Amino acid sequence: MTPKTSFTKKKVVFFVTGNVHKFNEARQVFAEYDFATAMLNLDAIEIQDDELENIAKASVIDAAKKSRLLVIVEDAGLFIEALNGFPGPYSSYVYRTLGTRGILKLMDKESQREAYFLSVVAFSSPKRLRPICFQGKVEGTITHKERGKKGFGFDPIFEPLGANEKTFAEMEAEQKNEYSHRAQALRKFASWYSK
Amino acid sequence: MTPKTSFTKKKVVFFVTGNVHKFNEARQVFAEYDFATAMLNLDAIEIQDDELENIAKASVIDAAKKSRLLVIVEDAGLFIEALNGFPGPYSSYVYRTLGTRGILKLMDKESQREAYFLSVVAFSSPKRLRPICFQGKVEGTITHKERGKKGFGFDPIFEPLGANEKTFAEMEAEQKNEYSHRAQALRKFASWYSK
Repeated sequence: MTPKTSFTKKKVVFFVTGNVHKFNEARQVFAEYDFATAMLNLDAIEIQDDELENIAKASVIDAAKKSRLLVIVEDAGLFIEALNGFPGPYSSYVYRTLGTRGILKLMDKESQREAYFLSVVAFSSPKRLRPICFQGKVEGTITHKERGKKGFGFDPIFEPLGANEKTFAEMEAEQKNEYSHRAQALRKFASWYSK
Repeated sequence: MTPKTSFTKKKVVFFVTGNVHKFNEARQVFAEYDFATAMLNLDAIEIQDDELENIAKASVIDAAKKSRLLVIVEDAGLFIEALNGFPGPYSSYVYRTLGTRGILKLMDKESQREAYFLSVVAFSSPKRLRPICFQGKVEGTITHKERGKKGFGFDPIFEPLGANEKTFAEMEAEQKNEYSHRAQALRKFASWYSK
């Protein structure tokens, strides 16, 4: 019989981000899984590309090279159908410059209000620089005005389908994590990583 | 007395771009200078950054490494003051998704219409990967509707100062080259490179 060790060394993954909101969403999701996580504020490259997955892959390869650690990055965007996918991969820049007000102005008198949030989590080890990606997507609509104060970014103008007409900014973090694109992608990663 | 050679070998610079409009603007400007130029359609990295100069530097380093040639890249953007600099470095993505119509909608009922076009030309040799940058800037205003069919991108809604209220899209290429941000930056590069 092999003796029991008094503790098991937990696997760790480093979440490369400068955004504490993102990290907190991840911490809540990962709490159910048997590995540890830490926030790593590292300046990883971010390329311009219409595909989130390509952006996340380039970032995670760069982060794994620079840190020599097991890392994930997460990239997300809001894709609005009537605007040909805008702001898409540039959502954070658009949020900083135009804000939710700019999006509402672009959507003024627009009846087609379908949109989705897409999240890509990319994982890489420092040895094998071949990223593995996990996607999460939530469909919904763009509201006519801002509603709610929680969350961040475009949360006050996005109402996911099947959530009693609440915007992401009107939900508690736990409730948002049931629906959110980011939580879905993080959960897919987590169940793969904890195997 | 040294004998005259029958010809002098001209210096060459490769303009890395997939945009034939840009290359034609460059050819016209460079015609006055004593070096040759060629279009090089190469997939150079393009990073996300609020500063055009940082984007151009990263691209030209990558292009010089990949091609092993003397290369320039050019990156430009339209910066609208009332929109906190939007669309800035993401002008081509925004043009593809929102178009001029989207910009006019964002600027609807906006009295502050100042904007500028900024261009950065970055040069690098393949040996010494330390880019040198040249900037050109043209100030103007955003029109209330599209005017003109020439040029490309946001040219129909941008009226440079001191050009008899013509938009870039209402000018012949020669006239635009007197004013344009891109021509200014290319000319600065050309006079430095031909020394």
